[in-house]
Amino acid sequence: MSNMIKIPTIDNIKNARRRIAPFIHQTPIFTSATLNAISSKALYFKCENLQKTGSFKARGATNALLSLCELDPPNAVATHSSGNHAAALSWAAGINGIKALIVMPENAPEAKINAVRHYGGEITFCRPTLKARETTLNRILEKTGARFIHPYDHQDIICGQGTAAIELLQSQFLDAVIAPVGGGGLLSGTSLAVRALSPKTKIYGAEPAKADDAYRSFQKGHLCKITNPNTVADGLRTNLSELTFAIIRQYVDNIFLADEEQIIKATRLMWERLKIIAEPSAAVPLAALWQNLDSIPEKKIGIIVSGGNMDLKSFGLFNPERQEN
Amino acid sequence: MSNMIKIPTIDNIKNARRRIAPFIHQTPIFTSATLNAISSKALYFKCENLQKTGSFKARGATNALLSLCELDPPNAVATHSSGNHAAALSWAAGINGIKALIVMPENAPEAKINAVRHYGGEITFCRPTLKARETTLNRILEKTGARFIHPYDHQDIICGQGTAAIELLQSQFLDAVIAPVGGGGLLSGTSLAVRALSPKTKIYGAEPAKADDAYRSFQKGHLCKITNPNTVADGLRTNLSELTFAIIRQYVDNIFLADEEQIIKATRLMWERLKIIAEPSAAVPLAALWQNLDSIPEKKIGIIVSGGNMDLKSFGLFNPERQEN
Repeated sequence: MSNMIKIPTIDNIKNARRRIAPFIHQTPIFTSATLNAISSKALYFKCENLQKTGSFKARGATNALLSLCELDPPNAVATHSSGNHAAALSWAAGINGIKALIVMPENAPEAKINAVRHYGGEITFCRPTLKARETTLNRILEKTGARFIHPYDHQDIICGQGTAAIELLQSQFLDAVIAPVGGGGLLSGTSLAVRALSPKTKIYGAEPAKADDAYRSFQKGHLCKITNPNTVADGLRTNLSELTFAIIRQYVDNIFLADEEQIIKATRLMWERLKIIAEPSAAVPLAALWQNLDSIPEKKIGIIVSGGNMDLKSFGLFNPERQEN
Repeated sequence: MSNMIKIPTIDNIKNARRRIAPFIHQTPIFTSATLNAISSKALYFKCENLQKTGSFKARGATNALLSLCELDPPNAVATHSSGNHAAALSWAAGINGIKALIVMPENAPEAKINAVRHYGGEITFCRPTLKARETTLNRILEKTGARFIHPYDHQDIICGQGTAAIELLQSQFLDAVIAPVGGGGLLSGTSLAVRALSPKTKIYGAEPAKADDAYRSFQKGHLCKITNPNTVADGLRTNLSELTFAIIRQYVDNIFLADEEQIIKATRLMWERLKIIAEPSAAVPLAALWQNLDSIPEKKIGIIVSGGNMDLKSFGLFNPERQEN
C-alpha cells in the first residue's frame, strides 16, 4: 500500500487556509507565567478549544466540505464519529446548506449527541461495534448518495488540521511544536506544515500511555493497532491510518507518552492557570512534556490545545443535587 | 460627606492606562453565536478572567501601587480582602519589589489563601468579623508603616478598573456595557470611562438579588448597606462606599438583579460556549441581562467578565475519590 500513498504538500495546506479563513477563527495563543515556571519552558498554547465547534476539527471538516463543493456539490455528507469531528462536520455542512448524516454508537455521551443535533446533524444510532458502525454507514451512503468524510484518513482533512500550525508559527520562531495524536489527522497536518515552514523546529506527538498505538507504530516502523483503549483522553482512542502513519513516520521527530494521572493534573492546571476549558485530550501534550523533560531540551515550545468539549455537569456548582444541601 | 468627594476624570483613567500598560494584559474580547442566539443580542465579552492574577483587580492594584511609587515609594502595602484584590495587590507589589501584607479571615477559602501566597503576599489571619479585620489591619499599619490600599474605596483603584472599558470601547461602538457590582470599583471606573468616551452608550450594573445593596442604594438615592449577604457570586458580597456610590449614582443608567439559579446557569453556559473559566461573579451580567430583557432594548452589548478564580476541586475529573470508583 505505502507506495501508493499521496502525501499532501505545503501548498495544499496553504490553499486549505485560504479556503477556510472566512469561516473559522484565527484562535489566540495564550501564555502563563506559572505554567512556564512549572515546566522550565516558554510555552505558547494555540487555543483550538476556542475554535468554532470547540475544536480544531472545524478546520479539517470545513476544508473537506468546501473542497467537495468546488468540484461537485453533494446533497449530503456522512461520517461515523462519536466525537468532535461529528460536531464539526455537522456545523460545516450546515453553514453550506448541506445535510450531515452522522453514525454514532447508541452509548455515545449525551453531550456529544446534543452537540451534533445543535449543529443540525442527523444522527443514526448503531450498536457500539466497529462492524455495526461500518455497516450502518455503508447503508446510509448507498441509500442517500452522501459523500463519506473520514475523521482523519483523508487528504483534505489533514490539510485543514495543518492550518493551525501555520498560525502558530507566524506568531514567532518556536524550538518545538507538540500536538496530541489519536487518529493522527492533527499531528500529520501539523508535521507537514512545521517541516515546510520552519525546518529547524522539532515536531513531537503526545499520546496517552493507555492508547499508545502511534508510539508503538513509530518505534517499530510499522502500523500497530490497539483495540478499545481506556483513557480519560477520549479524543485520542483511535488508531493511526496508513496515510497518517506514513506522514508521521516521515516528518515527526518523536512521540511521547503521558499517564492518566499527569493528563488529569495538566487539564486542571490549564483550567486554573490559563482560565480555559481544555478537554483531557488537549492536555496530553503538556502532560507528556512534564513526563519527558529529559528528552525535550527545546525551550520555546508551541502546544496545540486541540479542543474544549466535555460534559461539565459533574462540577459541584452545576450539580442540581448541590441545591438540596 | 458627599460634597467633599472628588470624582476621577477621564484623564485620570487614561493616565492609569499608560501607567499599567507594561504590566497587564490587553485582554481579548470573545463572542459566541450560541450565546447571542439565546440572548437575542450581539454580546462582546471582555475577558478579564484572562487578566494577570485572573481578574480585573490587577488593573487597579497596579495603578494604585505605581501611583504611590511615583510620589514616595513605600516599604510595604497592606489591605484586607479575602478575594481577588488580595492576590492582585500581592502580585503588583511583588513585581515592584514591595512587600504586601494581607489581612484575611481565618475561614477564607484555601484557594484564595494559596493565591495570595503564590504571589508572595504575607498573610495575617483574623477572626471573621469586620471589627477584627479593621483592628488587625490598623495594628499592622501602625507597626510597619505600610500604606493601606482599599479594595475599591480609592481613586487610583477606580481609575485602574476603568481601563478595561477603554479597551472594550476601542474595539467598536457598543449600545450598552454591563459590569458586575460589588463594592463598586469596577462599575464606577467603567461608568466614568464609558460616559466620557461614548456618551450614547448605556451603562448598566449587574448585582446578585441576594446582595442587592447597590440596587437599593440606586433606587432610593442614598447609600443602603446589607450585612452578610449569601450569594454564590462571592466577589459581589461587599457594600458600595460613599465614593463609588457617588460615581454610580451620577453615571450609571440602571442596575439589574440576577437570581442565584440564573447566575449558575450563566456561569455554566459561559464555560460551555465560550470555553473559559468564569467565576460566578463574572456571570452576573449575563444572568441579569437574561432576567431583564424587557428593560434592556440595546442590541450590541459589552460585558465585563470580571474574573476566573474559583476552586475547581469539586469537578468530577479532578476529584481523587473518582479514582477509587
